[in-house]
Amino acid sequence: MKLTPEQLTVFERDGYLFFPSLFSPAEVEILHAEVPKIYAESRPEIVREKDGVTPRSSFAAHTYNPVYAKLARHPRLVEPVTQVLGEDLYMHQFKINAKEAFDGDVWQWHQDYGTWKRDDDMPEPRAMNIALFLDEVNELNGPLMLIPGSHKQGVQSAGHDVQTTSYPLWTIDNATITRLVAEGGIVAPKGSPGAMLMFHGNLVHGSGSNMSPWRRNIVYLSLCAVSNHIRRFKRPEYIAHRDFTPIRPLPDDCLLRDDIEVELAPSRAA
Amino acid sequence: MKLTPEQLTVFERDGYLFFPSLFSPAEVEILHAEVPKIYAESRPEIVREKDGVTPRSSFAAHTYNPVYAKLARHPRLVEPVTQVLGEDLYMHQFKINAKEAFDGDVWQWHQDYGTWKRDDDMPEPRAMNIALFLDEVNELNGPLMLIPGSHKQGVQSAGHDVQTTSYPLWTIDNATITRLVAEGGIVAPKGSPGAMLMFHGNLVHGSGSNMSPWRRNIVYLSLCAVSNHIRRFKRPEYIAHRDFTPIRPLPDDCLLRDDIEVELAPSRAA
Repeated sequence: MKLTPEQLTVFERDGYLFFPSLFSPAEVEILHAEVPKIYAESRPEIVREKDGVTPRSSFAAHTYNPVYAKLARHPRLVEPVTQVLGEDLYMHQFKINAKEAFDGDVWQWHQDYGTWKRDDDMPEPRAMNIALFLDEVNELNGPLMLIPGSHKQGVQSAGHDVQTTSYPLWTIDNATITRLVAEGGIVAPKGSPGAMLMFHGNLVHGSGSNMSPWRRNIVYLSLCAVSNHIRRFKRPEYIAHRDFTPIRPLPDDCLLRDDIEVELAPSRAA
Repeated sequence: MKLTPEQLTVFERDGYLFFPSLFSPAEVEILHAEVPKIYAESRPEIVREKDGVTPRSSFAAHTYNPVYAKLARHPRLVEPVTQVLGEDLYMHQFKINAKEAFDGDVWQWHQDYGTWKRDDDMPEPRAMNIALFLDEVNELNGPLMLIPGSHKQGVQSAGHDVQTTSYPLWTIDNATITRLVAEGGIVAPKGSPGAMLMFHGNLVHGSGSNMSPWRRNIVYLSLCAVSNHIRRFKRPEYIAHRDFTPIRPLPDDCLLRDDIEVELAPSRAA
Protein backbone atom coordinates (compact mmCIF):
# COMPACT_ATOMS: atom_id res chain seq x y z
CA MET A 1 0.00 0.00 0.00
CA LYS A 2 1.54 3.25 -1.18
CA LEU A 3 0.10 6.75 -0.73
CA THR A 4 -0.13 8.86 -3.89
CA PRO A 5 1.46 12.33 -4.11
CA GLU A 6 -2.09 13.76 -3.97
CA GLN A 7 -2.82 11.86 -0.76
CA LEU A 8 0.42 13.10 0.77
CA THR A 9 -0.52 16.70 -0.12
CA VAL A 10 -3.97 16.30 1.48
CA PHE A 11 -2.42 14.76 4.58
CA GLU A 12 0.05 17.64 4.87
CA ARG A 13 -2.79 20.18 4.63
CA ASP A 14 -5.55 18.50 6.70
CA GLY A 15 -3.60 16.23 9.03
CA TYR A 16 -5.63 13.13 8.18
CA LEU A 17 -6.56 10.69 5.41
CA PHE A 18 -9.66 8.50 5.29
CA PHE A 19 -9.88 5.13 3.49
CA PRO A 20 -13.56 4.08 3.38
CA SER A 21 -13.03 0.35 2.74
CA LEU A 22 -9.50 -0.73 3.54
CA PHE A 23 -10.38 -4.09 5.11
CA SER A 24 -12.85 -6.64 3.72
CA PRO A 25 -15.95 -7.85 5.58
CA ALA A 26 -14.25 -11.25 6.05
CA GLU A 27 -11.24 -9.61 7.69
CA VAL A 28 -13.40 -7.42 9.91
CA GLU A 29 -15.40 -10.45 11.01
CA ILE A 30 -12.23 -12.17 12.18
CA LEU A 31 -11.22 -9.07 14.15
CA HIS A 32 -14.69 -8.56 15.57
CA ALA A 33 -15.00 -12.11 16.85
CA GLU A 34 -12.10 -11.50 19.27
CA VAL A 35 -13.53 -8.34 20.87
CA PRO A 36 -15.98 -9.94 23.33
CA LYS A 37 -13.23 -12.36 24.44
CA ILE A 38 -10.88 -9.45 25.12
CA TYR A 39 -13.44 -7.41 27.07
CA ALA A 40 -14.47 -10.49 29.05
CA GLU A 41 -10.99 -10.79 30.53
CA SER A 42 -10.30 -9.07 33.79
CA ARG A 43 -6.82 -7.65 33.24
CA PRO A 44 -5.42 -4.23 34.12
CA GLU A 45 -5.31 -3.51 30.38
CA ILE A 46 -9.12 -3.17 30.29
CA VAL A 47 -10.40 0.28 31.31
CA ARG A 48 -14.10 0.50 32.24
CA GLU A 49 -16.41 3.53 32.06
CA LYS A 50 -17.29 5.34 35.29
CA ASP A 51 -20.04 2.79 35.95
CA GLY A 52 -17.25 0.23 36.49
CA VAL A 53 -18.82 -2.25 34.07
CA THR A 54 -19.07 -0.91 30.51
CA PRO A 55 -15.78 -1.41 28.63
CA ARG A 56 -14.17 1.86 27.53
CA SER A 57 -10.71 0.89 26.31
CA SER A 58 -8.67 -2.25 25.99
CA PHE A 59 -4.90 -1.78 25.78
CA ALA A 60 -2.22 -3.94 24.20
CA ALA A 61 -4.40 -6.81 22.92
CA HIS A 62 -1.67 -7.34 20.32
CA THR A 63 0.59 -8.63 23.09
CA TYR A 64 -1.74 -11.47 24.12
CA ASN A 65 -4.30 -12.02 21.34
CA PRO A 66 -2.95 -13.81 18.23
CA VAL A 67 -5.35 -12.09 15.80
CA TYR A 68 -4.52 -8.60 17.04
CA ALA A 69 -0.83 -9.54 17.07
CA LYS A 70 -1.19 -9.96 13.31
CA LEU A 71 -3.17 -6.74 12.92
CA ALA A 72 -0.38 -4.81 14.68
CA ARG A 73 1.92 -5.91 11.84
CA HIS A 74 -0.51 -5.45 8.98
CA PRO A 75 1.07 -3.88 5.89
CA ARG A 76 -2.05 -1.83 5.10
CA LEU A 77 -1.63 -0.07 8.45
CA VAL A 78 2.14 0.01 8.85
CA GLU A 79 3.31 0.87 5.33
CA PRO A 80 1.54 4.22 4.82
CA VAL A 81 2.90 5.48 8.14
CA THR A 82 6.42 4.23 7.26
CA GLN A 83 6.10 6.14 4.01
CA VAL A 84 5.13 9.42 5.71
CA LEU A 85 7.69 9.19 8.54
CA GLY A 86 10.43 7.78 6.31
CA GLU A 87 11.86 5.25 8.74
CA ASP A 88 11.13 2.06 10.66
CA LEU A 89 8.30 2.15 13.22
CA TYR A 90 7.59 0.61 16.59
CA MET A 91 4.24 0.33 18.36
CA HIS A 92 3.91 3.06 20.96
CA GLN A 93 0.30 2.25 21.90
CA PHE A 94 -2.32 -0.23 20.75
CA LYS A 95 -5.92 -0.10 21.95
CA ILE A 96 -9.52 -0.88 21.16
CA ASN A 97 -11.93 1.88 22.16
CA ALA A 98 -15.40 0.48 22.70
CA LYS A 99 -17.80 3.46 22.78
CA GLU A 100 -20.50 1.00 23.78
CA ALA A 101 -24.17 1.41 22.87
CA PHE A 102 -26.08 3.67 25.32
CA ASP A 103 -23.20 4.05 27.81
CA GLY A 104 -20.19 5.04 25.69
CA ASP A 105 -18.79 8.22 27.18
CA VAL A 106 -16.99 11.19 25.61
CA TRP A 107 -13.31 11.65 24.82
CA GLN A 108 -12.59 15.32 25.44
CA TRP A 109 -10.75 17.45 22.88
CA HIS A 110 -7.06 16.54 22.91
CA GLN A 111 -3.89 15.90 20.91
CA ASP A 112 -2.31 12.49 21.34
CA TYR A 113 1.20 13.87 20.95
CA GLY A 114 0.47 16.28 23.79
CA THR A 115 0.14 13.27 26.08
CA TRP A 116 3.06 11.38 24.55
CA LYS A 117 5.31 14.40 25.09
CA ARG A 118 4.15 15.31 28.59
CA ASP A 119 3.77 11.83 30.02
CA ASP A 120 6.19 9.73 27.97
CA ASP A 121 8.86 12.26 26.85
CA MET A 122 8.52 11.41 23.18
CA PRO A 123 10.94 13.89 21.51
CA GLU A 124 9.00 14.90 18.36
CA PRO A 125 5.49 14.43 16.89
CA ARG A 126 6.96 11.78 14.59
CA ALA A 127 4.22 9.30 15.47
CA MET A 128 0.89 8.67 13.83
CA ASN A 129 -2.51 7.32 14.73
CA ILE A 130 -4.35 4.69 12.75
CA ALA A 131 -8.05 4.20 13.53
CA LEU A 132 -9.63 1.06 12.10
CA PHE A 133 -13.44 0.90 12.30
CA LEU A 134 -14.76 -2.48 13.52
CA ASP A 135 -18.37 -1.27 13.52
CA GLU A 136 -20.28 1.14 11.38
CA VAL A 137 -19.53 4.69 12.48
CA ASN A 138 -22.46 7.04 11.90
CA GLU A 139 -23.42 10.51 13.07
CA LEU A 140 -25.31 9.12 16.07
CA ASN A 141 -22.91 6.68 17.74
CA GLY A 142 -20.15 9.07 18.79
CA PRO A 143 -17.97 9.42 15.70
CA LEU A 144 -14.41 10.69 16.04
CA MET A 145 -14.37 14.46 15.47
CA LEU A 146 -11.25 16.03 13.95
CA ILE A 147 -10.26 19.69 13.52
CA PRO A 148 -8.61 19.78 10.07
CA GLY A 149 -5.31 21.65 9.93
CA SER A 150 -4.94 21.80 13.73
CA HIS A 151 -1.82 19.58 13.50
CA LYS A 152 0.14 22.52 12.06
CA GLN A 153 -0.01 24.63 15.20
CA GLY A 154 2.20 22.52 17.43
CA VAL A 155 1.37 21.30 20.91
CA GLN A 156 -1.45 23.27 22.54
CA SER A 157 -1.39 23.97 26.24
CA ALA A 158 -3.58 21.50 28.07
CA GLY A 159 -4.90 20.60 31.48
CA HIS A 160 -4.84 17.12 32.97
CA ASP A 161 -8.46 16.01 33.15
CA VAL A 162 -8.92 13.21 35.66
CA GLN A 163 -12.60 13.94 36.34
CA THR A 164 -14.71 13.91 33.21
CA THR A 165 -14.16 10.27 32.28
CA SER A 166 -12.50 7.21 33.79
CA TYR A 167 -9.32 7.72 31.72
CA PRO A 168 -6.94 10.62 32.51
CA LEU A 169 -6.28 12.86 29.52
CA TRP A 170 -4.47 16.11 28.72
CA THR A 171 -7.36 18.17 27.34
CA ILE A 172 -7.43 21.48 25.51
CA ASP A 173 -9.35 24.52 26.76
CA ASN A 174 -12.54 25.85 25.14
CA ALA A 175 -11.01 29.11 23.87
CA THR A 176 -8.34 27.21 21.91
CA ILE A 177 -10.91 24.81 20.46
CA THR A 178 -13.12 27.73 19.44
CA ARG A 179 -10.18 29.36 17.64
CA LEU A 180 -9.04 26.15 15.90
CA VAL A 181 -12.58 25.28 14.79
CA ALA A 182 -13.10 28.82 13.44
CA GLU A 183 -10.08 28.17 11.21
CA GLY A 184 -10.52 24.52 10.29
CA GLY A 185 -14.08 23.47 11.12
CA ILE A 186 -14.88 19.99 12.40
CA VAL A 187 -15.10 16.79 10.37
CA ALA A 188 -16.48 13.48 11.63
CA PRO A 189 -15.68 10.75 9.08
CA LYS A 190 -18.42 8.15 8.87
CA GLY A 191 -18.06 4.72 7.34
CA SER A 192 -18.54 0.99 7.32
CA PRO A 193 -16.60 -1.59 9.30
CA GLY A 194 -13.19 -1.90 7.64
CA ALA A 195 -12.74 1.83 7.03
CA MET A 196 -9.46 3.36 8.20
CA LEU A 197 -8.55 6.84 9.35
CA MET A 198 -4.90 7.88 9.62
CA PHE A 199 -4.14 11.10 11.50
CA HIS A 200 -1.24 13.19 12.71
CA GLY A 201 -0.14 12.99 16.36
CA ASN A 202 -0.83 16.71 16.77
CA LEU A 203 -4.30 16.69 15.17
CA VAL A 204 -6.86 17.89 17.71
CA HIS A 205 -9.71 15.38 18.10
CA GLY A 206 -12.37 14.07 20.44
CA SER A 207 -15.67 12.20 20.37
CA GLY A 208 -19.10 12.60 21.90
CA SER A 209 -21.17 10.18 23.89
CA ASN A 210 -23.03 7.27 22.35
CA MET A 211 -26.73 7.17 23.30
CA SER A 212 -27.67 5.02 20.31
CA PRO A 213 -28.24 1.25 20.46
CA TRP A 214 -25.24 0.82 18.13
CA ARG A 215 -21.82 0.01 19.62
CA ARG A 216 -18.82 1.63 17.96
CA ASN A 217 -15.53 -0.24 18.35
CA ILE A 218 -12.42 1.30 16.83
CA VAL A 219 -8.89 -0.16 16.96
CA TYR A 220 -6.16 2.45 17.39
CA LEU A 221 -2.52 1.91 16.51
CA SER A 222 -0.09 4.65 17.52
CA LEU A 223 2.98 4.04 15.42
CA CYS A 224 6.17 5.91 16.28
CA ALA A 225 9.42 6.36 14.36
CA VAL A 226 12.01 4.14 16.05
CA SER A 227 14.54 6.98 16.40
CA ASN A 228 11.81 9.00 18.17
CA HIS A 229 11.13 6.46 20.91
CA ILE A 230 9.92 7.61 24.32
CA ARG A 231 12.41 8.52 27.06
CA ARG A 232 10.24 8.35 30.21
CA PHE A 233 8.58 5.20 31.51
CA LYS A 234 6.02 6.71 33.84
CA ARG A 235 2.84 5.15 32.48
CA PRO A 236 2.21 1.39 32.60
CA GLU A 237 4.07 -0.57 29.95
CA TYR A 238 0.78 -1.73 28.39
CA ILE A 239 -0.20 1.93 27.79
CA ALA A 240 3.17 3.30 26.58
CA HIS A 241 5.24 0.45 25.19
CA ARG A 242 8.98 0.14 25.82
CA ASP A 243 9.79 -2.36 23.09
CA PHE A 244 11.29 -0.29 20.26
CA THR A 245 11.93 -3.20 17.90
CA PRO A 246 11.06 -2.20 14.32
CA ILE A 247 7.80 -3.72 13.10
CA ARG A 248 8.21 -6.11 10.16
CA PRO A 249 4.96 -6.14 8.17
CA LEU A 250 3.31 -9.50 7.50
CA PRO A 251 1.83 -10.52 4.12
CA ASP A 252 -1.27 -8.61 3.03
CA ASP A 253 -3.58 -11.63 3.54
CA CYS A 254 -2.23 -12.44 7.01
CA LEU A 255 -5.57 -12.11 8.80
CA LEU A 256 -7.17 -14.73 6.56
CA ARG A 257 -4.33 -17.25 6.87
CA ASP A 258 -3.95 -19.86 9.57
CA ASP A 259 -0.33 -20.64 8.71
CA ILE A 260 0.95 -17.29 9.93
CA GLU A 261 1.53 -17.03 13.64
CA VAL A 262 3.19 -14.23 15.54
CA GLU A 263 5.16 -14.95 18.68
CA LEU A 264 3.35 -13.28 21.58
CA ALA A 265 5.18 -11.49 24.36
CA PRO A 266 5.86 -14.57 26.54
CA SER A 267 4.84 -13.04 29.85
CA ARG A 268 1.62 -11.70 28.42
CA ALA A 269 0.11 -14.67 26.59
CA ALA A 270 -3.29 -15.57 27.98
CA MET B 1 -50.74 28.08 8.45
CA LYS B 2 -52.60 24.92 7.44
CA LEU B 3 -51.17 21.40 7.18
CA THR B 4 -51.83 19.58 3.90
CA PRO B 5 -53.48 16.12 3.81
CA GLU B 6 -50.03 14.73 2.83
CA GLN B 7 -48.43 16.33 5.88
CA LEU B 8 -51.16 14.92 8.11
CA THR B 9 -50.53 11.44 6.69
CA VAL B 10 -46.78 11.72 7.30
CA PHE B 11 -47.38 12.96 10.83
CA GLU B 12 -49.72 10.04 11.52
CA ARG B 13 -47.09 7.57 10.29
CA ASP B 14 -43.84 9.07 11.66
CA GLY B 15 -45.05 11.10 14.63
CA TYR B 16 -43.29 14.30 13.54
CA LEU B 17 -43.12 16.99 10.86
CA PHE B 18 -40.15 19.21 10.07
CA PHE B 19 -40.38 22.72 8.60
CA PRO B 20 -36.87 23.83 7.56
CA SER B 21 -37.50 27.59 7.45
CA LEU B 22 -40.65 28.56 9.28
CA PHE B 23 -39.34 31.78 10.85
CA SER B 24 -37.33 34.46 9.06
CA PRO B 25 -33.80 35.54 10.10
CA ALA B 26 -35.25 38.85 11.32
CA GLU B 27 -37.72 37.04 13.57
CA VAL B 28 -35.06 34.69 14.91
CA GLU B 29 -32.79 37.63 15.68
CA ILE B 30 -35.50 39.20 17.84
CA LEU B 31 -35.97 35.92 19.71
CA HIS B 32 -32.26 35.32 20.08
CA ALA B 33 -31.56 38.74 21.53
CA GLU B 34 -33.68 37.88 24.58
CA VAL B 35 -31.91 34.61 25.45
CA PRO B 36 -28.86 36.03 27.27
CA LYS B 37 -31.14 38.28 29.32
CA ILE B 38 -33.26 35.30 30.34
CA TYR B 39 -30.30 33.11 31.32
CA ALA B 40 -28.72 36.01 33.20
CA GLU B 41 -31.64 36.13 35.63
CA SER B 42 -31.43 34.11 38.77
CA ARG B 43 -34.92 32.72 39.09
CA PRO B 44 -36.10 29.22 40.00
CA GLU B 45 -37.24 28.85 36.38
CA ILE B 46 -33.61 28.56 35.22
CA VAL B 47 -32.16 25.04 35.52
CA ARG B 48 -28.34 24.77 35.37
CA GLU B 49 -26.23 21.80 34.28
CA LYS B 50 -24.51 19.69 36.95
CA ASP B 51 -21.65 22.22 37.07
CA GLY B 52 -24.16 24.68 38.59
CA VAL B 53 -23.27 27.39 36.05
CA THR B 54 -24.03 26.38 32.47
CA PRO B 55 -27.70 27.03 31.62
CA ARG B 56 -29.59 23.84 30.71
CA SER B 57 -33.25 24.89 30.59
CA SER B 58 -35.23 28.02 31.13
CA PHE B 59 -38.92 27.52 31.91
CA ALA B 60 -41.89 29.79 31.36
CA ALA B 61 -40.12 32.79 29.79
CA HIS B 62 -43.46 33.53 28.10
CA THR B 63 -44.85 34.53 31.49
CA TYR B 64 -42.30 37.29 32.10
CA ASN B 65 -40.60 38.12 28.78
CA PRO B 66 -42.71 40.18 26.33
CA VAL B 67 -41.11 38.72 23.17
CA TYR B 68 -41.62 35.12 24.28
CA ALA B 69 -45.13 36.01 25.42
CA LYS B 70 -45.81 36.77 21.76
CA LEU B 71 -44.07 33.62 20.55
CA ALA B 72 -46.29 31.52 22.83
CA ARG B 73 -49.28 32.84 20.85
CA HIS B 74 -47.73 32.68 17.39
CA PRO B 75 -50.14 31.38 14.73
CA ARG B 76 -47.38 29.43 12.93
CA LEU B 77 -46.88 27.37 16.09
CA VAL B 78 -50.39 27.23 17.51
CA GLU B 79 -52.50 26.67 14.39
CA PRO B 80 -50.98 23.39 13.10
CA VAL B 81 -51.41 21.83 16.55
CA THR B 82 -54.99 23.11 16.80
CA GLN B 83 -55.62 21.51 13.42
CA VAL B 84 -54.27 18.10 14.49
CA LEU B 85 -55.94 18.04 17.92
CA GLY B 86 -59.18 19.61 16.68
CA GLU B 87 -59.86 21.89 19.61
CA ASP B 88 -58.56 24.90 21.54
CA LEU B 89 -55.15 24.61 23.19
CA TYR B 90 -53.50 25.84 26.37
CA MET B 91 -49.80 26.02 27.16
CA HIS B 92 -48.79 23.05 29.30
CA GLN B 93 -45.06 23.82 29.29
CA PHE B 94 -42.82 26.42 27.69
CA LYS B 95 -39.03 26.22 27.84
CA ILE B 96 -35.78 27.12 26.14
CA ASN B 97 -33.23 24.30 26.18
CA ALA B 98 -29.73 25.67 25.87
CA LYS B 99 -27.45 22.74 25.02
CA GLU B 100 -24.54 25.12 25.46
CA ALA B 101 -21.28 24.84 23.55
CA PHE B 102 -18.79 22.41 25.16
CA ASP B 103 -20.87 21.76 28.29
CA GLY B 104 -24.36 20.94 27.02
CA ASP B 105 -25.33 17.61 28.54
CA VAL B 106 -27.53 14.78 27.25
CA TRP B 107 -31.30 14.35 27.49
CA GLN B 108 -31.87 10.64 27.94
CA TRP B 109 -34.38 8.72 25.80
CA HIS B 110 -37.90 9.58 26.93
CA GLN B 111 -41.48 10.36 25.95
CA ASP B 112 -42.85 13.70 27.11
CA TYR B 113 -46.34 12.32 27.58
CA GLY B 114 -44.89 9.66 29.87
CA THR B 115 -43.90 12.47 32.23
CA TRP B 116 -47.11 14.45 31.75
CA LYS B 117 -49.16 11.37 32.61
CA ARG B 118 -47.11 10.14 35.57
CA ASP B 119 -46.30 13.50 37.15
CA ASP B 120 -49.16 15.74 36.04
CA ASP B 121 -52.05 13.30 35.48
CA MET B 122 -52.74 14.47 31.95
CA PRO B 123 -55.55 12.14 30.79
CA GLU B 124 -54.57 11.43 27.14
CA PRO B 125 -51.59 12.09 24.83
CA ARG B 126 -53.58 14.92 23.26
CA ALA B 127 -50.69 17.35 23.58
CA MET B 128 -47.94 18.16 21.15
CA ASN B 129 -44.40 19.46 21.18
CA ILE B 130 -43.14 22.28 19.03
CA ALA B 131 -39.37 22.74 18.79
CA LEU B 132 -38.20 26.01 17.27
CA PHE B 133 -34.47 26.20 16.44
CA LEU B 134 -32.84 29.47 17.54
CA ASP B 135 -29.37 28.30 16.43
CA GLU B 136 -28.16 26.09 13.62
CA VAL B 137 -28.62 22.47 14.58
CA ASN B 138 -26.02 20.22 13.01
CA GLU B 139 -24.81 16.67 13.53
CA LEU B 140 -22.16 17.82 16.02
CA ASN B 141 -23.97 20.06 18.51
CA GLY B 142 -26.35 17.55 20.05
CA PRO B 143 -29.31 17.45 17.67
CA LEU B 144 -32.64 16.13 18.86
CA MET B 145 -32.91 12.42 17.99
CA LEU B 146 -36.33 10.95 17.24
CA ILE B 147 -37.46 7.34 16.77
CA PRO B 148 -40.00 7.53 13.92
CA GLY B 149 -43.23 5.62 14.54
CA SER B 150 -42.55 5.15 18.25
CA HIS B 151 -45.58 7.33 19.10
CA LYS B 152 -47.90 4.51 18.00
CA GLN B 153 -46.91 2.14 20.77
CA GLY B 154 -48.41 4.00 23.71
CA VAL B 155 -46.62 4.92 26.91
CA GLN B 156 -43.49 2.86 27.53
CA SER B 157 -42.52 1.82 31.01
CA ALA B 158 -39.88 4.12 32.38
CA GLY B 159 -37.65 4.72 35.37
CA HIS B 160 -37.28 8.06 37.11
CA ASP B 161 -33.72 9.18 36.39
CA VAL B 162 -32.55 11.75 38.93
CA GLN B 163 -28.84 11.01 38.51
CA THR B 164 -27.67 11.34 34.92
CA THR B 165 -28.41 15.04 34.52
CA SER B 166 -29.55 17.93 36.70
CA TYR B 167 -33.18 17.58 35.53
CA PRO B 168 -35.28 14.59 36.70
CA LEU B 169 -36.78 12.63 33.80
CA TRP B 170 -38.79 9.44 33.25
CA THR B 171 -36.41 7.56 30.94
CA ILE B 172 -36.89 4.42 28.87
CA ASP B 173 -34.73 1.30 29.25
CA ASN B 174 -32.14 0.16 26.71
CA ALA B 175 -34.00 -2.98 25.62
CA THR B 176 -37.07 -0.94 24.66
CA ILE B 177 -34.99 1.62 22.76
CA THR B 178 -33.18 -1.18 20.91
CA ARG B 179 -36.53 -2.67 19.85
CA LEU B 180 -38.07 0.66 18.80
CA VAL B 181 -34.94 1.67 16.84
CA ALA B 182 -34.87 -1.71 15.08
CA GLU B 183 -38.38 -0.92 13.84
CA GLY B 184 -38.14 2.81 13.16
CA GLY B 185 -34.49 3.83 13.09
CA ILE B 186 -33.33 7.20 14.40
CA VAL B 187 -33.63 10.57 12.67
CA ALA B 188 -31.92 13.76 13.81
CA PRO B 189 -33.35 16.70 11.84
CA LYS B 190 -30.74 19.36 11.13
CA GLY B 191 -31.45 22.90 10.06
CA SER B 192 -30.95 26.61 10.26
CA PRO B 193 -32.24 28.98 12.91
CA GLY B 194 -35.96 29.40 12.29
CA ALA B 195 -36.61 25.73 11.51
CA MET B 196 -39.47 24.06 13.39
CA LEU B 197 -40.08 20.48 14.42
CA MET B 198 -43.53 19.39 15.59
CA PHE B 199 -43.77 16.00 17.31
CA HIS B 200 -46.27 13.78 19.09
CA GLY B 201 -46.29 13.63 22.90
CA ASN B 202 -45.58 9.90 22.75
CA LEU B 203 -42.70 10.10 20.27
CA VAL B 204 -39.53 8.70 21.89
CA HIS B 205 -36.67 11.19 21.69
CA GLY B 206 -33.44 12.32 23.33
CA SER B 207 -30.27 14.23 22.52
CA GLY B 208 -26.54 13.74 23.00
CA SER B 209 -23.98 15.99 24.58
CA ASN B 210 -22.58 19.06 22.83
CA MET B 211 -18.77 19.13 22.73
CA SER B 212 -18.66 21.54 19.81
CA PRO B 213 -18.02 25.27 20.12
CA TRP B 214 -21.54 25.88 18.76
CA ARG B 215 -24.40 26.53 21.22
CA ARG B 216 -27.75 25.02 20.28
CA ASN B 217 -30.78 26.80 21.75
CA ILE B 218 -34.22 25.37 21.01
CA VAL B 219 -37.54 26.78 22.25
CA TYR B 220 -40.09 24.11 23.17
CA LEU B 221 -43.83 24.68 23.38
CA SER B 222 -45.92 21.84 24.77
CA LEU B 223 -49.45 22.59 23.66
CA CYS B 224 -52.30 20.61 25.19
CA ALA B 225 -55.98 20.30 24.21
CA VAL B 226 -57.96 22.34 26.74
CA SER B 227 -60.32 19.43 27.53
CA ASN B 228 -57.25 17.30 28.29
CA HIS B 229 -55.80 19.59 30.96
CA ILE B 230 -53.71 18.15 33.78
CA ARG B 231 -55.37 16.99 37.01
CA ARG B 232 -52.41 16.86 39.44
CA PHE B 233 -50.40 19.90 40.51
CA LYS B 234 -47.32 18.21 41.88
CA ARG B 235 -44.62 19.93 39.85
CA PRO B 236 -43.93 23.67 40.13
CA GLU B 237 -46.42 25.84 38.28
CA TYR B 238 -43.67 27.16 35.98
CA ILE B 239 -42.94 23.60 34.79
CA ALA B 240 -46.53 22.30 34.45
CA HIS B 241 -48.86 25.24 33.95
CA ARG B 242 -52.28 25.44 35.61
CA ASP B 243 -53.79 28.17 33.47
CA PHE B 244 -56.02 26.36 30.98
CA THR B 245 -57.27 29.47 29.16
CA PRO B 246 -57.43 28.81 25.41
CA ILE B 247 -54.61 30.46 23.48
CA ARG B 248 -55.78 33.11 21.00
CA PRO B 249 -53.18 33.36 18.20
CA LEU B 250 -51.76 36.80 17.40
CA PRO B 251 -51.24 38.13 13.86
CA ASP B 252 -48.60 36.37 11.78
CA ASP B 253 -46.21 39.35 11.91
CA CYS B 254 -46.53 39.84 15.67
CA LEU B 255 -42.83 39.38 16.44
CA LEU B 256 -41.87 42.20 14.08
CA ARG B 257 -44.48 44.64 15.39
CA ASP B 258 -44.06 47.00 18.32
CA ASP B 259 -47.76 47.80 18.57
CA ILE B 260 -48.69 44.34 19.79
CA GLU B 261 -48.25 43.74 23.45
CA VAL B 262 -49.36 40.77 25.49
CA GLU B 263 -50.36 41.17 29.10
CA LEU B 264 -47.85 39.28 31.23
CA ALA B 265 -48.87 37.22 34.22
CA PRO B 266 -48.89 40.06 36.79
CA SER B 267 -47.03 38.27 39.54
CA ARG B 268 -44.32 37.12 37.20
CA ALA B 269 -43.33 40.27 35.29
CA ALA B 270 -39.65 41.07 35.75
